[in-house]
Amino acid sequence: MKPFIAAVDWGTSSFRIWLLDSAGHILAEDRSDEGMMKAREIGFPTVLDRHLTRLSADPELPVMICGMAGAKQGWQEAPYVETPASLDDLVGRSVRVSADYPIHILPGVCQRSFDAPDVMRGEETQLLGAFSKGGASGIVCLPGTHTKWVLMEKGIIRRFTTFMTGEIYAAIAGHTILKLALAEGEDADPEGVAFTNAVLRAVEKPALATSRIFAIRSAPLLNIAGTEDAAAKLSGELIGLEIAGALAQFGELSKVELIGSGKLATLYRAALEAAGLSVHLTDADQAVRAGLLTAARRHNS
Amino acid sequence: MKPFIAAVDWGTSSFRIWLLDSAGHILAEDRSDEGMMKAREIGFPTVLDRHLTRLSADPELPVMICGMAGAKQGWQEAPYVETPASLDDLVGRSVRVSADYPIHILPGVCQRSFDAPDVMRGEETQLLGAFSKGGASGIVCLPGTHTKWVLMEKGIIRRFTTFMTGEIYAAIAGHTILKLALAEGEDADPEGVAFTNAVLRAVEKPALATSRIFAIRSAPLLNIAGTEDAAAKLSGELIGLEIAGALAQFGELSKVELIGSGKLATLYRAALEAAGLSVHLTDADQAVRAGLLTAARRHNS
Repeated sequence: MKPFIAAVDWGTSSFRIWLLDSAGHILAEDRSDEGMMKAREIGFPTVLDRHLTRLSADPELPVMICGMAGAKQGWQEAPYVETPASLDDLVGRSVRVSADYPIHILPGVCQRSFDAPDVMRGEETQLLGAFSKGGASGIVCLPGTHTKWVLMEKGIIRRFTTFMTGEIYAAIAGHTILKLALAEGEDADPEGVAFTNAVLRAVEKPALATSRIFAIRSAPLLNIAGTEDAAAKLSGELIGLEIAGALAQFGELSKVELIGSGKLATLYRAALEAAGLSVHLTDADQAVRAGLLTAARRHNS
Repeated sequence: MKPFIAAVDWGTSSFRIWLLDSAGHILAEDRSDEGMMKAREIGFPTVLDRHLTRLSADPELPVMICGMAGAKQGWQEAPYVETPASLDDLVGRSVRVSADYPIHILPGVCQRSFDAPDVMRGEETQLLGAFSKGGASGIVCLPGTHTKWVLMEKGIIRRFTTFMTGEIYAAIAGHTILKLALAEGEDADPEGVAFTNAVLRAVEKPALATSRIFAIRSAPLLNIAGTEDAAAKLSGELIGLEIAGALAQFGELSKVELIGSGKLATLYRAALEAAGLSVHLTDADQAVRAGLLTAARRHNS
């Protein structure tokens, strides 16, 4: 089978590439830690070339890229599309980085609001992939280092809100007194009652989150609880705080479209269901591939 | 003038000592970074001896210590007094660390509650000093790395709540994408509208704090705001989140007894006043000295 495109998701600290046929089947794939930060040193074309060579791809194969390669400090800036942003407009606003080969970078989306300025790069392509059949409406949650909550209206990104949940988790777990409680480095168990209880407490009283996080350390000190659920409690508090924020921002919700992968998707699904929301899950990797494929098809048509 | 005691505030990462006369006047003082963490390596008696020698103190001078020297991993454990904890009981629960010299360590206070386990070491001595005239009631805020909010009833610590505000500020400022916005390392300006606006937003909608913190980075990216107020905004969001938590925990408040020193006291005063509370400020250094002096007097009487 001959590849139709090379699809690339170029994050801040990760690089992923798939060779896809015209139906979207994966013919080959690769990943590395050569995200934007490393690629700025190595050179973006070099990183891409090496991966294409490793996958034995035709050098003239069209490449469709999303993510931080299009940031100001990336390969070539693909200026943000402003909200309200139609998913259909993204493809037309992509930039071509080279005259020789058909390499395109999709733009990010920004919210140029004084009260709620916000940016995304990469998630818009997941949305394009998840809703490529068009006309989607509703609230979408895309968990990650900087989790996005997006209000979609008939295929248009109306507005969105970023929560720093993932990055704040890492900062607290690694750089506060809580690392004494989290020393075993265990992951949060999404099935456990420690996790869902923490979610519910934070949804109910979000303002007490930074106090209950301290209690993750005090309780073992007083032999009131062990440290075995420390990661679950910290994760539950922060995801619960985020859900409370999303409810404050988007009103009472009954269902959420979740676009996520792996462990994080499992944690978010458990948290959202504990908070009484019904969840429809789409795999984020599949969504980004579908988005890049959709973009490539429209480009060629 | 002959010293009456050496008063020592032994924190996690700082050591402070004052020689006081019987009226509480400072005859000499010193400070170093030999808090509990360093003292565990050097040896607690060695650190104390060096400072007493440097201040030319009589080796038989009584020493009164509060703080982390009494922790389980400190010099000698001074077990927590449980809430409700009378300030009058603290002195009788101090421990003597040496048979040769009259060196005492005051105990901390713990809240052995399943829902709200909590601990303090050092702040109870500030409370003793600030309310040594007895019978104090009301809500007290003691800002720090781990800020304490305490409900006092007639000289008794009824209950208290720790917020990890200071430590979370440092973790976010130093170990997330916000360090790009905070790169200039400037301090928060308590007088500025950026600080008080952030406080008010967080008090009103605490659940959105981790989203607005991300906006501190997005706004300059979109040229909607500069980075000059980044520290004020981050500080305001986190102190505002704490105030919202204290209101959730202790009910609507009209006034707060603030025990703090320096920059942090100024920030908290500005934040509490912006949130509509009336503030009475007591200097924390003065309070801890007064508490240690009170303890020494009762011990000797």
